[in-house]
Amino acid sequence: MKQKVAVLGPGSWGTALAQVLAENGHEVRIWGHNKAQIDEINTQHTNHHYLPDLVIPESIQGKVSLEECIEEADAVLFVVPTKAIRTVAQEFTEKCKNQPLIIHASKGLEQGSHKRISEVLMEEIPTEKRRGVVVLSGPSHAEEVAVHDITTITAASEKIAAAKYVQSLFMNDYFRIYTNDDVIGVETGAALKNIIALGAGAIHGLGFGDDAKAAIMTRGLAEISRLGVAMGANPLTFIGLSGVGDLIVTCTSVHSRNWRAGNLLGKGHSLDEVLENMGMIVEGVSTTKAAYELSQQLNVDMPITAAIYKVLYEGKDVKQAAKEIMLRDGKTENEFSI
Amino acid sequence: MKQKVAVLGPGSWGTALAQVLAENGHEVRIWGHNKAQIDEINTQHTNHHYLPDLVIPESIQGKVSLEECIEEADAVLFVVPTKAIRTVAQEFTEKCKNQPLIIHASKGLEQGSHKRISEVLMEEIPTEKRRGVVVLSGPSHAEEVAVHDITTITAASEKIAAAKYVQSLFMNDYFRIYTNDDVIGVETGAALKNIIALGAGAIHGLGFGDDAKAAIMTRGLAEISRLGVAMGANPLTFIGLSGVGDLIVTCTSVHSRNWRAGNLLGKGHSLDEVLENMGMIVEGVSTTKAAYELSQQLNVDMPITAAIYKVLYEGKDVKQAAKEIMLRDGKTENEFSI
Repeated sequence: MKQKVAVLGPGSWGTALAQVLAENGHEVRIWGHNKAQIDEINTQHTNHHYLPDLVIPESIQGKVSLEECIEEADAVLFVVPTKAIRTVAQEFTEKCKNQPLIIHASKGLEQGSHKRISEVLMEEIPTEKRRGVVVLSGPSHAEEVAVHDITTITAASEKIAAAKYVQSLFMNDYFRIYTNDDVIGVETGAALKNIIALGAGAIHGLGFGDDAKAAIMTRGLAEISRLGVAMGANPLTFIGLSGVGDLIVTCTSVHSRNWRAGNLLGKGHSLDEVLENMGMIVEGVSTTKAAYELSQQLNVDMPITAAIYKVLYEGKDVKQAAKEIMLRDGKTENEFSI
Repeated sequence: MKQKVAVLGPGSWGTALAQVLAENGHEVRIWGHNKAQIDEINTQHTNHHYLPDLVIPESIQGKVSLEECIEEADAVLFVVPTKAIRTVAQEFTEKCKNQPLIIHASKGLEQGSHKRISEVLMEEIPTEKRRGVVVLSGPSHAEEVAVHDITTITAASEKIAAAKYVQSLFMNDYFRIYTNDDVIGVETGAALKNIIALGAGAIHGLGFGDDAKAAIMTRGLAEISRLGVAMGANPLTFIGLSGVGDLIVTCTSVHSRNWRAGNLLGKGHSLDEVLENMGMIVEGVSTTKAAYELSQQLNVDMPITAAIYKVLYEGKDVKQAAKEIMLRDGKTENEFSI
């Protein structure tokens, strides 16, 4: 059945998801601050800055007014940067007059509080203004979704009916949705994978090969799973699309910002040089700090994260850090119990 | 403490493992049928055909007599092709006069019986001639181990003391061993990953991108985990080095035979053409048949394996097979319970 969906955030991922929804026959409005960009969406049916080659379905309406965008929406999809989630959720709450399903497709932990995005959304949006909260996450380049390449995504919610609704909203012959009830596992995997991408880049920059890349990805996954389990996740979620799937895309694509930053660190550049060279935010840098602090609070062994933290924040030599990881005592593979 | 270790099989992996053991100070003998090759190991200290650039430690003694190789060995490492495991185990049993630890580093299922390699070893070697059986598996190119690149491996045994002994035998500053007690999970992951490598190659050959590669790897891992669990494995083993770790190396290296064969299938070549073009055995082809038959016997849903089976053995069009996988009903992520 045709649904009214509001997409908050006209970046590349928001635009690609809006396209999927419009192609599936839903009524889609997309909200953004930038009037020139919204005008471009409405008149040219393009979003040149984010997806240069895409022609956006004409049925998608751009809105600069959040109130107009969310009016009578059946579902509201948040695709804004992590640091903007709380303010956008507050504005949504002020202006919302019904009870839509809340979906988000953002990745990260709130700075300072280390809270997951769905936690922030549930804090800011009262229950009478949300039918449920669903997180969308998985291995996906917006550019590939835009050209109808095959993409698979997880929709996770504590309420499985809400996840199934989101599955039916998005699913078609190039975009396949799998449901999951482990919101904590999906959100922590999505956030923490950027640490491992930094590490995989560093291993490459140091000149190591495929075995070492697979080693840091697998053992990195083991330790982010341990932290996730300590936060309440199901360890099996990390074997899924939002865990290992997203990790594969992030660590094997040279387009990944986090991988590229790690690669520069591995080649011996300082964090300041790397950030200057990149000229943009590298999420893994702040996520490493958050995960390191959480691992101390929750008493979780995270040797790779700790090594990356020391390289980033304490000026430790990256080669020495890699060597120390190899020389630790022998371990068993699965150190968490389920 | 210095141990006597017999390595059965002087291929690239056997030679690289023998080198690790010799560098760790153990007394290492390596057995093979080919007298010219064994002579080369003993006099030139090279194994040119398998590892062209390696200079083998002089302490490693090549043997053409299995009896001499295993005499008074503390541990015997089988690194022979899967199809030779049973006959070599029979010959070992005839000639063994003590009770060494049995280790194997072979990958696959026995053709016809679909038995795991440790099952074959335990059938052929009576308990008085083995202190235990340990499987070694993980993301590893022999060429990288030979040059002391960082490599991580799982040592799995029902007897954790046996796995720890193997850990102490091999572990050093470039070769790191993790213990595990789930032999079934490690062996099934190692064998079945080749099916997914075929599929990932086919997806590439069909022209799909990174999202689709991550999708087939992740959902492929989910279904080989389901089959493994039905065979008695712990699902968490598939998140480890012998599961996802090995899968990453196999599916992201263009040197993988299975990936290359899949890529040719994806480009529209028939199985006969592919096998002729490759000029060597592609393990994933027979493993797909074994897994397909096991999935029928054990009533496990394996849509990707079934699709590859139909392409390989029933001449199904590869593009149509990929499309049908995408058009199935929506699923939940974790379909096995633990």
